[in-house]
Amino acid sequence: FNRVPEALKKVEGGLGIDFPDDAAAIPVDDGYIVVTTDSYTVNPPFFPGGNIGLLAAAGTINDVLMIGGTPLAALDSIVVEEGFEMEKLELIIGSMVETLRAEGVALIGGDFKVMPRGTLEGIVVNMVGIGHASRLIVDKDLRPGDKIIVSGPIGEHGALILALQQGFGVDESKMTSDARPLTDLMKPLLSKYGEHIHAARDPTRGGLSMLLNDWAKATGTVIVVEEGRVPIREHVKMYAEMLGIDPMSLASEGVAVLGVDPNVADQVLDLLRDLGYMEAAIIGEVRQSDKYGGLVLLRSAVGGFRILDPPRGELVPRIC
Amino acid sequence: FNRVPEALKKVEGGLGIDFPDDAAAIPVDDGYIVVTTDSYTVNPPFFPGGNIGLLAAAGTINDVLMIGGTPLAALDSIVVEEGFEMEKLELIIGSMVETLRAEGVALIGGDFKVMPRGTLEGIVVNMVGIGHASRLIVDKDLRPGDKIIVSGPIGEHGALILALQQGFGVDESKMTSDARPLTDLMKPLLSKYGEHIHAARDPTRGGLSMLLNDWAKATGTVIVVEEGRVPIREHVKMYAEMLGIDPMSLASEGVAVLGVDPNVADQVLDLLRDLGYMEAAIIGEVRQSDKYGGLVLLRSAVGGFRILDPPRGELVPRIC
Repeated sequence: FNRVPEALKKVEGGLGIDFPDDAAAIPVDDGYIVVTTDSYTVNPPFFPGGNIGLLAAAGTINDVLMIGGTPLAALDSIVVEEGFEMEKLELIIGSMVETLRAEGVALIGGDFKVMPRGTLEGIVVNMVGIGHASRLIVDKDLRPGDKIIVSGPIGEHGALILALQQGFGVDESKMTSDARPLTDLMKPLLSKYGEHIHAARDPTRGGLSMLLNDWAKATGTVIVVEEGRVPIREHVKMYAEMLGIDPMSLASEGVAVLGVDPNVADQVLDLLRDLGYMEAAIIGEVRQSDKYGGLVLLRSAVGGFRILDPPRGELVPRIC
Repeated sequence: FNRVPEALKKVEGGLGIDFPDDAAAIPVDDGYIVVTTDSYTVNPPFFPGGNIGLLAAAGTINDVLMIGGTPLAALDSIVVEEGFEMEKLELIIGSMVETLRAEGVALIGGDFKVMPRGTLEGIVVNMVGIGHASRLIVDKDLRPGDKIIVSGPIGEHGALILALQQGFGVDESKMTSDARPLTDLMKPLLSKYGEHIHAARDPTRGGLSMLLNDWAKATGTVIVVEEGRVPIREHVKMYAEMLGIDPMSLASEGVAVLGVDPNVADQVLDLLRDLGYMEAAIIGEVRQSDKYGGLVLLRSAVGGFRILDPPRGELVPRIC
């Protein structure tokens, strides 16, 4: 009844993909349809700098961008507790729709479910992102020699939400979530340096530490990071210390981490700054190593090395 | 950076789609990529005849089938309460994967989140279905003269879950969920009678009553149903009576409702029975009506008519 195009038949048997877990790509004639999905459970759902609706929209757009896709459309599926305030729901959906619209992403479908009082605290927003990619950017294409660039200071979202969850007083003038779509960064970047961007990801759950460890493991390389070059704001350092957590493992929701051909790394950095990402920095590089392959090494200001382990144990829940 | 194919650009502005709310279609060169999403919250997550994993897989496959698509791939996003038993989780994911695999659908990505104890009762499974359709089957193509066919007895899943939620004793030898993928019905049906199937949907939340009211409203026609021809099993009638609910508004999770060209309706019925759907029945037809357009009319055995309203008020939560 349905003539499935040849290219799509490859999907039927399963794609041996090495993508981030929550994204998939379907080959079509002119490239790939990219599909991502994520559940957002952040608590509190409203926080300085945004709410769970903005977070879901931005996170979904970023997941599509980070595998080289142009975000085109989204679907949402929202689950709330019975009695969840209609006014809050409208604010959340309003932020979600507004964020998608501003990036030219159409909300083309959705589902809505209510759970009885006492069986869900607050709200869960599930979101599907759909995009098109001519070429996919996948972790395993990272290669020795590549420079690691971060687009801005890390850990803002994670530090904020943890502080709120712990009941710390938060100075909203200094401390807001960094949740935002990275379209204004990724579109010009890939347009100008597409082939030279070998890997791209946003350091959400598990932060930069998780991301770099994933990359090192996926490629069998060692990633050497200059600790002093990683941009981290003072208040994030302070909260991380109070919380007893390494800021390298705090989530960011509006930061890109790139693996870039060393020949264009400086130009990429200039472009990012021209685009307004003033704190972008080259923080390290990828090396071949028989001994340290699969690991991330931090070099301190005085030159000593230590291994940066991925975050251990349970990841803190309801951060994103 | 990315040459988005012309066809896909239509998506950017939003598709004016009249689909069921939880499905979307993206035009590609050889038809459409179909994407659906749904959140499954059924409580209890284990029930006679299956569990939430089977339900999510079957429901997702059916959503793709009902808009004329061939299911190709799926992504899941699971949210559980901290402390949710690992053994149960494995059973649920096992059923989900097994159901997808049996239908040739690849699970190509996923997400997993844990919520702190006390903030979520049990488990929520979000699922994305991806398929390809040469031609879309949409509600608005239903037309006067079409016969309405149901593939089997309605309300089995809804009656069962409500009975469990109310703490009624359930005789598992008689009463199981009807949750199942309808691939074995839809593939041969559309292959043989594709163009003659004008509308197709599965009567999940809100049951047959909701579905037919949606169809009547979408087309401005009146749908006349012969009450005595709607297949409903005795135990479903009994539980519906005990619960004070019209069985017409109870959810089915393995039933197709079709709007079929009258010239082939009998042949379609024969095919369904050949395929093992022995209780399939023509239950009514679509008519033009200035006076009753947008409504569903039930004709009783003695010939009187009454309006079948869509289910009122809050739909019962955590049925699917």
